[in-house]
Amino acid sequence: MSASLPATITLAHGGGGRQMHQLLEQIILPVFSNPWLEARHDAAVLELPAGRLAFTTDSYVVRPLEFPGGDIGSLAVYGTVNDLAMCGARPQYLSCGLILEEGLPLATLVRLVQSMQTAAQRAGVQLVTGDTKVVEQGQGDGLYINTAGVGLINHALDIAPARVRPGDVVLVNGDLGRHGMAVMTVREGLNFETPIESDAAPLADLVLALIAAGIEVHCLRDLTRGGLASALVEIAETAQVHIRLDEKALPLHPTVRAACELLGLDPLHVACEGRFVALVPADQARPALELMRTHPLGAQAVLVGQVSPAETALLTLTTPIGTSRRLERASGEQLPRIC
Amino acid sequence: MSASLPATITLAHGGGGRQMHQLLEQIILPVFSNPWLEARHDAAVLELPAGRLAFTTDSYVVRPLEFPGGDIGSLAVYGTVNDLAMCGARPQYLSCGLILEEGLPLATLVRLVQSMQTAAQRAGVQLVTGDTKVVEQGQGDGLYINTAGVGLINHALDIAPARVRPGDVVLVNGDLGRHGMAVMTVREGLNFETPIESDAAPLADLVLALIAAGIEVHCLRDLTRGGLASALVEIAETAQVHIRLDEKALPLHPTVRAACELLGLDPLHVACEGRFVALVPADQARPALELMRTHPLGAQAVLVGQVSPAETALLTLTTPIGTSRRLERASGEQLPRIC
Repeated sequence: MSASLPATITLAHGGGGRQMHQLLEQIILPVFSNPWLEARHDAAVLELPAGRLAFTTDSYVVRPLEFPGGDIGSLAVYGTVNDLAMCGARPQYLSCGLILEEGLPLATLVRLVQSMQTAAQRAGVQLVTGDTKVVEQGQGDGLYINTAGVGLINHALDIAPARVRPGDVVLVNGDLGRHGMAVMTVREGLNFETPIESDAAPLADLVLALIAAGIEVHCLRDLTRGGLASALVEIAETAQVHIRLDEKALPLHPTVRAACELLGLDPLHVACEGRFVALVPADQARPALELMRTHPLGAQAVLVGQVSPAETALLTLTTPIGTSRRLERASGEQLPRIC
Repeated sequence: MSASLPATITLAHGGGGRQMHQLLEQIILPVFSNPWLEARHDAAVLELPAGRLAFTTDSYVVRPLEFPGGDIGSLAVYGTVNDLAMCGARPQYLSCGLILEEGLPLATLVRLVQSMQTAAQRAGVQLVTGDTKVVEQGQGDGLYINTAGVGLINHALDIAPARVRPGDVVLVNGDLGRHGMAVMTVREGLNFETPIESDAAPLADLVLALIAAGIEVHCLRDLTRGGLASALVEIAETAQVHIRLDEKALPLHPTVRAACELLGLDPLHVACEGRFVALVPADQARPALELMRTHPLGAQAVLVGQVSPAETALLTLTTPIGTSRRLERASGEQLPRIC
C-alpha cells in the first residue's frame, strides 16, 4: 500500500476504511511498534501476575498543543502514568484514543505521536492499544488525546486519601505552578526573559523509591488541575482533617510568581504535571525528604504542611507574619484547558 | 455543598475547582456509585487473579448523540466491552473520559451518563475511574466519550486474526448494518414506516458461551466502522488467506437494504455494534451455530463464508448467479462519525 497521504487530516481518516488503514499503518503504528499493536487485534492481551492493579484515565485538551517544556503528547503520557504512581503502582501499559479535527496538519500529528512515544519510553510504559476518530472542522481543536493506564502494585501499603491522619506532614517534590503558567504565558502572549517551562515529568520512579525505602506513605496526589490547594482540600475532606500549609515553605520560582501576579492567579491553584504531595507520618519526614532529594525530580523537596484533627475538614495557609487564612478549591473559570 | 448547578455546562466545570467538584459530586458520581469511585483516588485499585488480561480503548464521537436503539452513552459501553469480548475476555472494568462542550444542556449529560450506567449493568461491568474535561463552544460537539476496558481471559485459546486457517468458516450472529443505518437515516432525515434501530448490544455472554462449549474459536471480530467487508479484509491480510463470502447467505433487514440503496451505501461497509464474526474450523460450524441460536443475540446466526489458501490475501463475494467480485475496505468518507 504505497498510496500517499494528504498533508492534512480528512474525515475519511476516521471512517474505518482505506484511508484510516493507511494513516494507522504508515504514520501511527510504526511510531509505537510493539508486539501488542502488531497483533492488529481489538484489544491487547497482557500477561500479569496476581495482585493489585491500578487503572486510570484522563483526556487531554490542552491549548495550545505545544508549549515550553512539553506538548499534548508528552502530557497525555505523564499525566496518566502519574495517576497510577499516586496509587503506588508501577505504570506498565497505556491505551491511546485520538480525536483528530479535520484539517490538522499531518506533520503536527507525526510530531505529537513521536512525543508520546518518547515520553512513554522515559516513563517505562508501552502503548499497547488505541483508537483514532476524526471530527469535522469546528467540532474539535486540532487534537484531543485520551490515555488510560494500567500499573502493578507490588507492595502492601494502602495509599489513599482516607488514610491521612493527624500527625502526618505534607511533603512536595518541587516548585509549584510551572506547568499551568507555561501554558498560560504562551496563550496570553506574555514574554519573560527566561520562558517558564512545564514541569511535566513521570513521577513513578521517585514514588516507588520512597515505598521501597520503607516510608509509610499514607497518601499521594499529583498537583494537576486546581493545583496544590484543590488537591489538599479534597484530601482534607476525605480524611476529615485540618491541613495547615506554611506559606514561607512553599517553593515558587520567581518567574512563576511574577506571571501569577500579572494574570491575577493564585499559584496554589495553578496546575503542575510533575509535582506531587506525599502525606507521611511526621517522624518519617526526614528520611523521606533526604531520599527525595537524591532524585532529579525531588531535588527541591520540602515539608510544606501538617495535618491536625478537625471538627470541620479544612485547609489553611499560615502566612509569614503568623496569621492564617482558609484556602478553598480553585474557581474553575480561571485556567481552562490547562491539561 | 448545596450550591445549585447551572442548566448548561460551562468551562468552569472542567477547571479542577469548585464547579467541577459540584458536577462530579452531584451529577456524575452518584450515577455510577461504587467503592472504587467512592475512594476519590487518582486511579482505581483492582484485585485480579494471575493470568491474561485484555485491555482496549475507543473514543466515541457519534452524531447525533441519540439515535433509535441507543445513544453515545450506551455505545461507549458496548463498543468497548465488545472489543474485550473479541479477545475471548470477560469484561470487568471500564474507565470513562468525558469531553464536554460548553453549552451542553445538563439534562442531556444526565440522560447520557444514566444510559452508560444502564448499559454497564447489562454488560456486567463496573465503571471505576474517570475524567471530565470541558472545551469551548465550537471546539467540540456536545459530548465525546472515551472508554477503556479491562477484561479477564479465563481459557487457554489464542484468539487472533493470525490464527485463521484455510478450512475455517465465517459465522455471523445476526443481520448486518443496522447500527450505521440507524444513525445515518436520522442524520439524513429519512423516514421509514418502522425506524431502523441500532443493533448495539454487549456480546461477551454469547462469545464466552461458545468458548465454554469447547468450540475452537480461531478469530473473533466485531463489525464496527468499515463493516463486515473491512473486518474480513483485515483478517485476510493478517492471516494471508482468501475469504469467500456467499452473498445470498448474508443476513440483511429489508429496511436496511432499502436505506443503503437510497444513500448509495454498500451494506457490507456499514457499521454494526452488536454483530461479530467468529472464524472456526468447518467441522465446528454446526455446533457453534446451534449454540449461538439459543442466545437472543445470536438467534439469526448463519454461516456466511469460507477460508481457503491464497497467494495474495483477499476477500471476495460470490453472487447468487455464481460470479465473484473482490471486496475492498470501505472508503472512509461515506460514513463519518458513526460511532
